[in-house]
Amino acid sequence: MNRKFFMEEALKLAEISYKNKDIPVGAVVVLNNEIIGRGYNRKELLKDASEHAEIMALKEASKKLKSYHLEECEMYVTLEPCAMCAGAIVNFRLKKIHIGTENPRFGCCGSNLNLLSHNFNHKTDVEFGLLKEQCSKILSNFFEELRK
Amino acid sequence: MNRKFFMEEALKLAEISYKNKDIPVGAVVVLNNEIIGRGYNRKELLKDASEHAEIMALKEASKKLKSYHLEECEMYVTLEPCAMCAGAIVNFRLKKIHIGTENPRFGCCGSNLNLLSHNFNHKTDVEFGLLKEQCSKILSNFFEELRK
Repeated sequence: MNRKFFMEEALKLAEISYKNKDIPVGAVVVLNNEIIGRGYNRKELLKDASEHAEIMALKEASKKLKSYHLEECEMYVTLEPCAMCAGAIVNFRLKKIHIGTENPRFGCCGSNLNLLSHNFNHKTDVEFGLLKEQCSKILSNFFEELRK
Repeated sequence: MNRKFFMEEALKLAEISYKNKDIPVGAVVVLNNEIIGRGYNRKELLKDASEHAEIMALKEASKKLKSYHLEECEMYVTLEPCAMCAGAIVNFRLKKIHIGTENPRFGCCGSNLNLLSHNFNHKTDVEFGLLKEQCSKILSNFFEELRK
């Protein structure tokens, strides 16, 4: 599996949010080239503002490993995480995250703020731009449809 | 009920974490002078780094109100929230939080960072120091016992 494959899987998860009328964001957690956590935004579906894609994926991975430290794991997420999710990524001690498209307003992995390399007890590497066009397009399609 | 009563309830919840060998932190969400969400740190218990007291209390309150916007609600929490929890408090649009004792290293409500009054789409008021001595003492007792 290559990096593109994992972001494509995250995009498939974002499609589930889209169908549920939730802002389409998907995330996977990967360990040793295997997906061990999957998540998609379920805020509207569950009426719960903590049910972001990243949290769902982190919880599943954590459950699978029976550990809250995911130091060897990487995340692929279609949209730059918010403060809550960036904070969770640091709490779970992820090694690296790959972000499809940036969130200039709320993104806390470098756009508005960078919580991933702040002076907490863990730092997570970050890389932007993998399948950026598709990750951005699913969002713009969603908001365009919403406006109609 | 007065403010002290609600922080005492949060302290009782922190005692549950203490007994579970989790860092003792408790939180309640209050609407119209009534507790609608209760939480205590369950990180060790559930082996899940997202299971902080604040998240548990917010989710319960949100479920009760069938809404992810808790704009009329206030939180009482024994220890200053971390980045993840401060981010969640903003996502749930809490009106105000009352914090027992500060967390200089990880606190994101004014100590290390302040995510509550950052340029996101919501700001939450914050007040420090309610029952500070008790909120601080339960933590120092816990860490002292841990070292033995």
